[in-house]
Amino acid sequence: MSRDRAVAFAPASVGNCAVGFDLIGHALEGPGDRVVATRTSEHGVRVDAIRGLPIELPREVEKNTAARAVASLLRSVDAQFGITLEIEKGIALGSGMGGSAASAVAALVAANALLDTPLPLDALYPHALEGEFAASGGRHGDNVAPSLLGGLVLAAHDRLVRLPVPEGLHTLLVHPDLVVETRVARERLRAPYAIGDFVPQSEALALFLAGLYTNDHALIRAGLMDVLVEPRRADLIPGFAAVKQAMLDHDAYGASISGAGPSVFGWFASRAAAEAAQLDALDAFANAGLDARAYVSPVAAAGARIETCT
Amino acid sequence: MSRDRAVAFAPASVGNCAVGFDLIGHALEGPGDRVVATRTSEHGVRVDAIRGLPIELPREVEKNTAARAVASLLRSVDAQFGITLEIEKGIALGSGMGGSAASAVAALVAANALLDTPLPLDALYPHALEGEFAASGGRHGDNVAPSLLGGLVLAAHDRLVRLPVPEGLHTLLVHPDLVVETRVARERLRAPYAIGDFVPQSEALALFLAGLYTNDHALIRAGLMDVLVEPRRADLIPGFAAVKQAMLDHDAYGASISGAGPSVFGWFASRAAAEAAQLDALDAFANAGLDARAYVSPVAAAGARIETCT
Repeated sequence: MSRDRAVAFAPASVGNCAVGFDLIGHALEGPGDRVVATRTSEHGVRVDAIRGLPIELPREVEKNTAARAVASLLRSVDAQFGITLEIEKGIALGSGMGGSAASAVAALVAANALLDTPLPLDALYPHALEGEFAASGGRHGDNVAPSLLGGLVLAAHDRLVRLPVPEGLHTLLVHPDLVVETRVARERLRAPYAIGDFVPQSEALALFLAGLYTNDHALIRAGLMDVLVEPRRADLIPGFAAVKQAMLDHDAYGASISGAGPSVFGWFASRAAAEAAQLDALDAFANAGLDARAYVSPVAAAGARIETCT
Repeated sequence: MSRDRAVAFAPASVGNCAVGFDLIGHALEGPGDRVVATRTSEHGVRVDAIRGLPIELPREVEKNTAARAVASLLRSVDAQFGITLEIEKGIALGSGMGGSAASAVAALVAANALLDTPLPLDALYPHALEGEFAASGGRHGDNVAPSLLGGLVLAAHDRLVRLPVPEGLHTLLVHPDLVVETRVARERLRAPYAIGDFVPQSEALALFLAGLYTNDHALIRAGLMDVLVEPRRADLIPGFAAVKQAMLDHDAYGASISGAGPSVFGWFASRAAAEAAQLDALDAFANAGLDARAYVSPVAAAGARIETCT
C-alpha cells in the first residue's frame, strides 16, 4: 500500500568546516527546513507553498532546490506519479547555514517515503546535489550530505563517508543579521592560488582526518583551520576577526566561516565550553554593529528525519 | 661511556605518493644510503668522503645534505665534540627516490647514536628537514620522514604522523635511466592554480586517508591520484603515460610520479601483483627508449637502522 503524504525535517549544517572546502560539513541541531510531500496522480513535481521567508523564492522546478531534487529522484525511479511540495523554511537565506541544502534534503526524504520502494539514504545524495545546483550553480555536497546523514560527513563527488567524531565535540555557530550571497563569496575565490598555498591546507586536512580517526584532539586542533578561503572572505563579514578571536579565547579548537558565511562557527571540547564562548562571540558581532543569534550543537548532530507519513 | 663510530643505513622513499604533495611518503625496501659517523674532539662537522656517485657532491657543511643535518643536530644539543662523515650513496641522484633525504637521515641516525644521550627518532625530524633544505631549497618532509621512521608517514611541518597501511600493500617503483632535476620539476608548478583544481585533489586526499584508517581498499583506490602536480610534470618523463597505464592494467590502486621523478610508482594489493606488473612497466620505458630498473617493496617498509656502533 503506497503512502500519500509525508512530512520530513532536515537540519541546518556547517559547510566547509574550515579545512574541507566544498567537501566536509556537519549537521547542526535545532534550525532546519520542513517539507510536506503529497503524492498526486499528475506526473511531475509542483511547489504549492513556500513559507517562513520574507521574500519569494522561485517555484519553477529547475530553479527550486527542493523541486529540482525531487524531480531528479522521480526520474531515476521512473515514478508513475507526481509529488507536490510545501516548504517551510526554518533557515534564513544567505546565512551560511545550508538552507538550500536542508530544503532539498527534507523534500527528498519526504518524497522518498512516498516511493513504492524507498531508497536507502545514501542513494538520495546525487539527487540532493542536483537540488544544490539549483541554488548555487555548483554540486558541492558539504551541506546536503550532513543534512541527510547527520554528523560529520566527507562528501565526495560520487560517495559519502561518515567521519568519526570524538565524544563531546560541540559547535558554537553565531549567525549575524546580514546576508552574504553565495555568488559574491564565490567570486572572492576567482583569483588563482600558488601550489604553496595548497600544501599547508592539505597538511591541515590530513592532520584533521588523522585526529578524527585516532581520537587525537591535538591533531584536530592543529588541522581545524583555513588558509585558502577564509582570508579572502573574512572582510565580507564585519567583526569576523573579533568573533573568531572570542571563540579562540574560549579555547575553541578552531573557528572559521560556516559555508559561504556570514555565520561563524567554532569547535569546542564540550557543550559547556561552547556555551561559555557564546556571549563574547555575540558581543563581538554587536561591537561591529550586528545583531546575531547563537546556536550550540553537537558536531555529531542528527540528520534528516521523517516526522509523519500516512 | 660514549661511542666513537656508528654506521647507519637509511632507505630510499617514495615522495608525494600522488595524493600528498610535499606531505606524504613511504619507505622503499632495498636501495638506500649508508653513512659512517665518527666522533672527533674537533668541533663541527666534516665530510671526509662521498662514494658511489659518478659526480662530485658539495662537501661544505651548509650545502651538503648530510652535513647540514648533523650540524643542526649538534647545535641543538650543544655538543662539545665534532663528527666526521663518510657517505656511501646507494640511490642515484635526481631519481625521485629520496636520495638526499636518505643521506641526511642516515647521517643523523649515525650521529645520534654518538650523542651522550641519543634523541628519539621523531626528534631528528627538524634536523632532517634542515638537510633536505640543502638539497632542494625547501623543507618538505615527505622523503626524510619515511626514510627515518619507515612505513607511510604524514610529514607535517612540525610533527610526524604514522599512517596505518593495510596488510599486503606493495609498491612497484620503476626508475628509468634519466635525471629530472628537482629544480626543473618544481618550476613546472609555478603557474597558478584555480580553487577548483584543489577540490578534487583534497577530495582524493581525504578518501585516501579515510581508506587507510578504515582498511577500505576501495577508498584508497579512489584517493591514490594526482590531478595537481602529475599533469604538469608528466612530459618530463618519456613514456610516463604508458608506464602508468601498464601498472593500471595490472590492477594498480593508482600510479604516479615518485617525488619529482623520473621514477614512477604504483600501489598493488600484494607483492605478487606488483611483481606481475614489473615486466610490462619496464617494457613501456624501453619503448620510450629508456633503460629502467624495477623495485618491489612493501609500502610498510622498514626505516633507517644502525648497522654498527662501537
